[in-house]
Amino acid sequence: MKLLGIWIVTLFVKLCFSVNSGSQPNIILILADDMGYGDLASYGHPTQEFGPIDEIAQLGLRFTQAYSADSVCSPSRASLLTGRLPIRTGAWGNDFRVWLTNCSRGLPHWEITIAEALKEKGYTTGMVGKWHLGINRYTYNDFTYIPSTQGFDFVGHMIPFGGSYSCEETGRYGNQTQTSCALMYGDEIIQQPYYHENLSIAFVEDALTFIRNSKERPFFFYYAAMHPHIPMFSSRRFKGSSNRGVYGDVINELSWEVQSIVDEVRAQGIEHNTLIVFMSDNGPQLEYCIEGGDPGIFRGGKTNSFEGGYRVPLITYWPGVIEPGVSHEIFSALDLLPTFIDLAGGRLADDREYDGMNNVNALLGKGPSSRDFVMFYNRDVLFAVRFGDYKVHFLTQDDRPVQYFGRLCQPFVYPMTTSYYCDENNVSLECVDYHDPPLIFELLSDPTESFPLDSTLYKELLDDIETLIEQHEETIIRAPPLMDDVLNNTYPCCNPLTNCICNWP
Amino acid sequence: MKLLGIWIVTLFVKLCFSVNSGSQPNIILILADDMGYGDLASYGHPTQEFGPIDEIAQLGLRFTQAYSADSVCSPSRASLLTGRLPIRTGAWGNDFRVWLTNCSRGLPHWEITIAEALKEKGYTTGMVGKWHLGINRYTYNDFTYIPSTQGFDFVGHMIPFGGSYSCEETGRYGNQTQTSCALMYGDEIIQQPYYHENLSIAFVEDALTFIRNSKERPFFFYYAAMHPHIPMFSSRRFKGSSNRGVYGDVINELSWEVQSIVDEVRAQGIEHNTLIVFMSDNGPQLEYCIEGGDPGIFRGGKTNSFEGGYRVPLITYWPGVIEPGVSHEIFSALDLLPTFIDLAGGRLADDREYDGMNNVNALLGKGPSSRDFVMFYNRDVLFAVRFGDYKVHFLTQDDRPVQYFGRLCQPFVYPMTTSYYCDENNVSLECVDYHDPPLIFELLSDPTESFPLDSTLYKELLDDIETLIEQHEETIIRAPPLMDDVLNNTYPCCNPLTNCICNWP
Repeated sequence: MKLLGIWIVTLFVKLCFSVNSGSQPNIILILADDMGYGDLASYGHPTQEFGPIDEIAQLGLRFTQAYSADSVCSPSRASLLTGRLPIRTGAWGNDFRVWLTNCSRGLPHWEITIAEALKEKGYTTGMVGKWHLGINRYTYNDFTYIPSTQGFDFVGHMIPFGGSYSCEETGRYGNQTQTSCALMYGDEIIQQPYYHENLSIAFVEDALTFIRNSKERPFFFYYAAMHPHIPMFSSRRFKGSSNRGVYGDVINELSWEVQSIVDEVRAQGIEHNTLIVFMSDNGPQLEYCIEGGDPGIFRGGKTNSFEGGYRVPLITYWPGVIEPGVSHEIFSALDLLPTFIDLAGGRLADDREYDGMNNVNALLGKGPSSRDFVMFYNRDVLFAVRFGDYKVHFLTQDDRPVQYFGRLCQPFVYPMTTSYYCDENNVSLECVDYHDPPLIFELLSDPTESFPLDSTLYKELLDDIETLIEQHEETIIRAPPLMDDVLNNTYPCCNPLTNCICNWP
Repeated sequence: MKLLGIWIVTLFVKLCFSVNSGSQPNIILILADDMGYGDLASYGHPTQEFGPIDEIAQLGLRFTQAYSADSVCSPSRASLLTGRLPIRTGAWGNDFRVWLTNCSRGLPHWEITIAEALKEKGYTTGMVGKWHLGINRYTYNDFTYIPSTQGFDFVGHMIPFGGSYSCEETGRYGNQTQTSCALMYGDEIIQQPYYHENLSIAFVEDALTFIRNSKERPFFFYYAAMHPHIPMFSSRRFKGSSNRGVYGDVINELSWEVQSIVDEVRAQGIEHNTLIVFMSDNGPQLEYCIEGGDPGIFRGGKTNSFEGGYRVPLITYWPGVIEPGVSHEIFSALDLLPTFIDLAGGRLADDREYDGMNNVNALLGKGPSSRDFVMFYNRDVLFAVRFGDYKVHFLTQDDRPVQYFGRLCQPFVYPMTTSYYCDENNVSLECVDYHDPPLIFELLSDPTESFPLDSTLYKELLDDIETLIEQHEETIIRAPPLMDDVLNNTYPCCNPLTNCICNWP
């Protein structure tokens, strides 16, 4: 009966598409970088300006139970683009939790990205912004892993690594070190190190051009924003625009980026045939203190398996199809690929396991989520599982509330001394607590994971979760850790003769 | 120039009234009890249902920088109704921070309440719900301090004390002790102890009747809800209505209460001449664990001078006058009396000092706040001052984040063992830290009060605040503490011959 119901709803949704918009909608995926659940006015931030992104949230569907696929950038993005967990794709490491600039590996080409899957169904694909899924394999310019090798027809201004605070031009975050700061356009480095200030303007211009030029075929565009990851930067128009300070300026610029894209979609008259998805890749990086973003009421932040690391803003907008509202349905970034493939009329590859689910009804607000569990990995280790409304922690990282480490931010240091914090590249054992019996929280009445339940009263739940984990683990073909292979001559370099400095005064 | 600007805006506002609504608007003040800043969906709560109150917030003005007048019920309500701080009115105590049921004092009659001030200008006045500003003076039924003695023409179902968890009928919160649980109607006890379940229905019926019957003259109605203070209770319709559990049920019932009032105002065709103000009396009482509400991202809760104790939801609704939106203007509950008096065309009494300011432009979203500071008292001691966007703490109470005392809630106890917590009646010295130099936070970039600034760089600010405090203190005529006089024969009693039990099966 339930399946029939879902089928009917799905049919209804599909009929709606036929009526409203023809088949194969355009899809624009806007990914914020390290934005916390609580960073937007529409998600409750008290001092962030209520901007265009919040207005779009009011016209679309605002999710309260959306999850990133991991709690740090590279594995989260790898999973988002492939629908598969890092343990299957190799997007993990024992020494590092992200692909560093000099890593000689990247997202394996055997993996099928959203771009590749949608190309298969006739889509034109494009992207701009932060990549962070690998660069070179053997030398400084083979560009083995960059987006054009992973299904993107058009690649505009693109940062293969990103988050490169050390080369922010004002020097606020430390010295210029150009090796991590290459700006590419397509397959070419066009500036090294790069200026941050006007990057968002360049991304937006590329995005608008792509949208204007892609009317013939349905398109998929991946707008991987740099904001609000540190370093904080913004174009002149947004400097000082926020009462909240530089972090707020950055959110305001990001809000403008989203608005510009929505405006162009409207201007092209394709808004009734275009699904726009806005999401963050993981929680806020709290150890950056006042520039570290806000997890809302949730516990923990980036790198952490408490909700603050995984629970993120998600807004979907599609006039005529998505009714304005708030959704409490569970949605994982892992579900984007299967859901988009369904919308494009395609099918998942049958030669591999997916962790993502077709969750089209939840994404469009047409019905309940297909998902009743979420896995919280840290590298290749399963730290916690959400099952129904319960979350069970087997391991937890330190999660000092921001009030407690705030004092360590004096004098204002970037980053805060890492010895006080389990940072993204240092999840050593002393940061981790083992829980046996596991910690159990009920997330609807206790979203802040504050009140652990008596585990002796939840034997059945724990049994069910054990079964779920067993079934999950049976499907896993472990990939080797692809983030640990560091090779210094794979640092990207525009020109070794100029010490990798190009177009920099 | 600034004054002229304010004058012009005020004139404009007044002209608007003349055009839209005639003079002397009706005023309905709905006060939530212990609702935290983060308890509503519109204020960012992730699992609380998006209900009618959130829809009204979207049609009205939602404030992000509204403050209660104190961090606990009685002093907050005394200040809200009089526009004067507890140190001036006597709404404070050395032993207790609220008027207990057997206290032989209450809000002095010399004080002028909003009801009295508006009566003076021809308003009909009414109230229902929780009073908590004193009951008897000498014996169990002299009712010296109840609402009818403080300017309210009509008093419907009314709880003179409130928050009486020990007599909640299911026994979840402890044994029935009828002495603190008198339900009155007007000047008479009609049930003792009272049933909680349908109280809100009774309050709403009274409110709607009052609104229907008060068309001839402008009216002021004070709807002092019992929700969401513990004990958790709700009528059958709302039991189990929330994914968030019993606390969510209570918020949903409160949301229905607000909706019923708004619907009646619309049904009577007076919505363009009626200002509706929704506010909370202080932050959430965190030591009640999962039933303790949510301060949002703020630090601390009820009883505390961190923002979590004072920063509260405030929503104003007046179709045709108030434009929908979000306001970041500072507003204090102290400002309600002067603002309402201004709207009614009256003037403040000139025989006393007021702490409230006429803040009509902020309340209606017509201009900047008249207020650039907020005083954070704990009893008669000034703990902190907000000046502009800075907050300076001279003393702070312990503010264990909820994650840290969550474990103390097992097994589920009401209240949590108070020895771990500075509760409302126990602000003893061991709970308080003295700060010299004071702690300084910038609240717009650091709303969570996490990152103290280097006080050596803020000498001018500290000087300005010292001057502000000196000027403030010069105006203070200290009232004696009126909460410490406990007299057991002043417990209210419907009938001593029946052991104070009336209309209870």
